[in-house]
Amino acid sequence: MIKRIHHIGIAVNNLKESAALFEKVLGVKAHIESVPCQKVTEAVFKIGSAAEIDLLEPMGTDSAVAKSLEKRGEGLHHIALEVDNINQELKTAEGKGIQLIDKEGREGAAGQIGFLHPRSLSGVMVELVQPRKK
Amino acid sequence: MIKRIHHIGIAVNNLKESAALFEKVLGVKAHIESVPCQKVTEAVFKIGSAAEIDLLEPMGTDSAVAKSLEKRGEGLHHIALEVDNINQELKTAEGKGIQLIDKEGREGAAGQIGFLHPRSLSGVMVELVQPRKK
Repeated sequence: MIKRIHHIGIAVNNLKESAALFEKVLGVKAHIESVPCQKVTEAVFKIGSAAEIDLLEPMGTDSAVAKSLEKRGEGLHHIALEVDNINQELKTAEGKGIQLIDKEGREGAAGQIGFLHPRSLSGVMVELVQPRKK
Repeated sequence: MIKRIHHIGIAVNNLKESAALFEKVLGVKAHIESVPCQKVTEAVFKIGSAAEIDLLEPMGTDSAVAKSLEKRGEGLHHIALEVDNINQELKTAEGKGIQLIDKEGREGAAGQIGFLHPRSLSGVMVELVQPRKK
């Protein structure tokens, strides 16, 4: 089951510059963290108690975010939806004809993650997230 | 003050087809409505009590969504942030050097709305929304 929108991912070339711009509009400071497993540095904005806005700067040239920046430039990159059971949800989506990028959950910044293919969802990259238990 | 993410707007060519795809993943039915003032038909998905996902199909060829589809194809189009006072927030953003598309709030689907220019925000189209009082 989809519980909520977990975050919105935005691809940027220069995290420091973009974080300063978003801080002006959002009125909150970002929390900066490195996510080596996804080859990005993130600026995470928490707004109220709900979904986050995450700015993503690639660490190298071979990550998904780096490729997206090269192809489409900066901007909205993906939406992440929180689920209870990542592997079950990926299986259910595949069973309904949605093409998967990840057949199984893998380690991400927020927990176990898996991506659905934008080809199956009107050009939208959707990430499923099963948050780490705190 | 920014209160929360209000919705995520997604530009699509065929609302019926895209709504069917998102229903598979989100596990909820969309509410369909026409928004003549913005020249779109929307499929609104409510997920939990938080932000909505809105699919947007243009009514004609001269709307912002139609132009975006022509230029960039289907996909993530904008994020909308809920505010208390739309005109005050637009003025504040402009005062901080953010370029505006709308200098003042105007009538939208959810209330008074105003757009910030993606040029000022790393390619991200940001909508501010002051919801109609119920």
